[in-house]
Amino acid sequence: MEKKIRIGITGYGNLGKGVEAAIKQNQDLELVAVFSRRDPASVGVKDPNIKVLPISEAENYKNDIDVMILCGGSATDLPEQGPAFATHFNTIDSYDTHAKIPAYFATMNQAAKSSGKTSIISVGWDPGMFSMNRLLGEAILPVGETYTFWGKGLSQGHSDAVRRVDGVKAAVQYTIPIEEAVNRVRNGENPELSTKEKHLRECFVVAEEGADKSKIEETIKTMPHYFSDYQTKVNFITEEELHANHSKMMHGGFVIRSGETGSGNNQIVEYSLKLDSNPEYTASVLTAYARAAYKMNQEGQAGAKTVFDVPIGHLSPKSPAQLRKELL
Amino acid sequence: MEKKIRIGITGYGNLGKGVEAAIKQNQDLELVAVFSRRDPASVGVKDPNIKVLPISEAENYKNDIDVMILCGGSATDLPEQGPAFATHFNTIDSYDTHAKIPAYFATMNQAAKSSGKTSIISVGWDPGMFSMNRLLGEAILPVGETYTFWGKGLSQGHSDAVRRVDGVKAAVQYTIPIEEAVNRVRNGENPELSTKEKHLRECFVVAEEGADKSKIEETIKTMPHYFSDYQTKVNFITEEELHANHSKMMHGGFVIRSGETGSGNNQIVEYSLKLDSNPEYTASVLTAYARAAYKMNQEGQAGAKTVFDVPIGHLSPKSPAQLRKELL
Repeated sequence: MEKKIRIGITGYGNLGKGVEAAIKQNQDLELVAVFSRRDPASVGVKDPNIKVLPISEAENYKNDIDVMILCGGSATDLPEQGPAFATHFNTIDSYDTHAKIPAYFATMNQAAKSSGKTSIISVGWDPGMFSMNRLLGEAILPVGETYTFWGKGLSQGHSDAVRRVDGVKAAVQYTIPIEEAVNRVRNGENPELSTKEKHLRECFVVAEEGADKSKIEETIKTMPHYFSDYQTKVNFITEEELHANHSKMMHGGFVIRSGETGSGNNQIVEYSLKLDSNPEYTASVLTAYARAAYKMNQEGQAGAKTVFDVPIGHLSPKSPAQLRKELL
Repeated sequence: MEKKIRIGITGYGNLGKGVEAAIKQNQDLELVAVFSRRDPASVGVKDPNIKVLPISEAENYKNDIDVMILCGGSATDLPEQGPAFATHFNTIDSYDTHAKIPAYFATMNQAAKSSGKTSIISVGWDPGMFSMNRLLGEAILPVGETYTFWGKGLSQGHSDAVRRVDGVKAAVQYTIPIEEAVNRVRNGENPELSTKEKHLRECFVVAEEGADKSKIEETIKTMPHYFSDYQTKVNFITEEELHANHSKMMHGGFVIRSGETGSGNNQIVEYSLKLDSNPEYTASVLTAYARAAYKMNQEGQAGAKTVFDVPIGHLSPKSPAQLRKELL
């Protein structure tokens, strides 16, 4: 058995927990330590044999960890942690503020180039697998349209917005692709569709005792930016129903490329995800890319990278010869 | 405008025609010449401005062509043409005899390494896009099962087999995924399924005048290797119906990875194709990979490659910065 690739996790929320679970499914990877800003005693890592350390000690482990998987959020954690860690470690992150990706890439590229490390940014399913399929779609079928649908899935931001409404005790919000729009795309009609013409929003709400449900419903449906432009359904349920039926962080969606070749032949390509656990799937993608970051760094490819730069063979523990034999 | 990438086509059957059409959809590519074993006057290239030359003259064009797309068949053309062209050109081919891929790779790697050229082999959708998705599936979700379904699509080999039956004037055969099997996989049941449990075969047959239709049907259904193990449907139609409804070379299929993460969360990933024209889609994939072969050769990456070795950003005419901004 070859030496295992040694992984560190920074940040132990849902994503970090998912990475811990994903590493256990890969024989060639081992988890060295989890780094957290919280008191290590309070972090509660699933495997009690795993070291939990304050994030300030991470640098001491730079010779013991081959790839650090950064499991913080894009708003405040990654802009700070990304460049700091890239100066000592190969890193993987799931930076997903689309508009700021070019700036984040530039910062990470500078940090990783100066240290000779490899940092693969914006890994996951969107950005990530969906991005790859958008690229493949237009590169292979340059005459055509690309459609991204999200859902059915739990949206954290929209659920939080509903929870802030007066009289709401608890709530979840699902983003759901509108079936008629999906079917038109799958049939090759190439319709023009805005985000709100592709998705509806469904809320499951637990009201406070004695709250005015019709007022809650109206407040949600008219909430600017979040709901007012969308078809929105509001369902009132009990707290028991919420816990029983709506506690999974399910998500998914699809990228469809509808192209035309030759003289009028329709060619439809679809990549779709149906996920019981959004954070665990994202974590599984990050974990596979940790292997790729390690290999690319061994090859001398320092700097920031994205899923567009990684030969996908590098994601697998199998040798190139084995991959050609078994999977091509 | 930068200099265009100059492409040559060897072999002008359905695949070569598809490549000619695909090049027209890409502003950064130009077709220099078509090479054929047939009398050039008889080849009938769609664009009359394109040079058609005997294959023996190809070597004279080694400084005028950046990438040669080999559109011959895997049985006899490519084993001979592949290594011969790789000693003078960057090449792309769609070699698809799965069991012989390792040997073909070794031969091509030796030829391309000795000439300093880049040869991407076994490009298309299976092998090709389906292979990529099989790899991604098991690398990201190592605990799970991968399923490949083909169809609904016209199978050339099986259509030929039906045409050889006594009393058959013309025929086509479709391979069709069995819906019940597909649904079990999509639901995450992870069933064990052989190829024949996943697909049925449907034939549309034009019988010769006065032929014994029930004998034809029985001969087809009991034909060893091709049909005897499968659920097979035989429909007799008129020659007019055959031409009107069954002349497109449609195909498609899907690769499904059904995996499990954490404690029992199902994660289903599906890549699917619905193609009006199988050869035109394959040709579009080859054409995008011609761009990648050119870029990899510019980077000094000589030798044989497969879709597993190519960073997918290389398939696009856009710059890495543009790709990050627009598609990530």
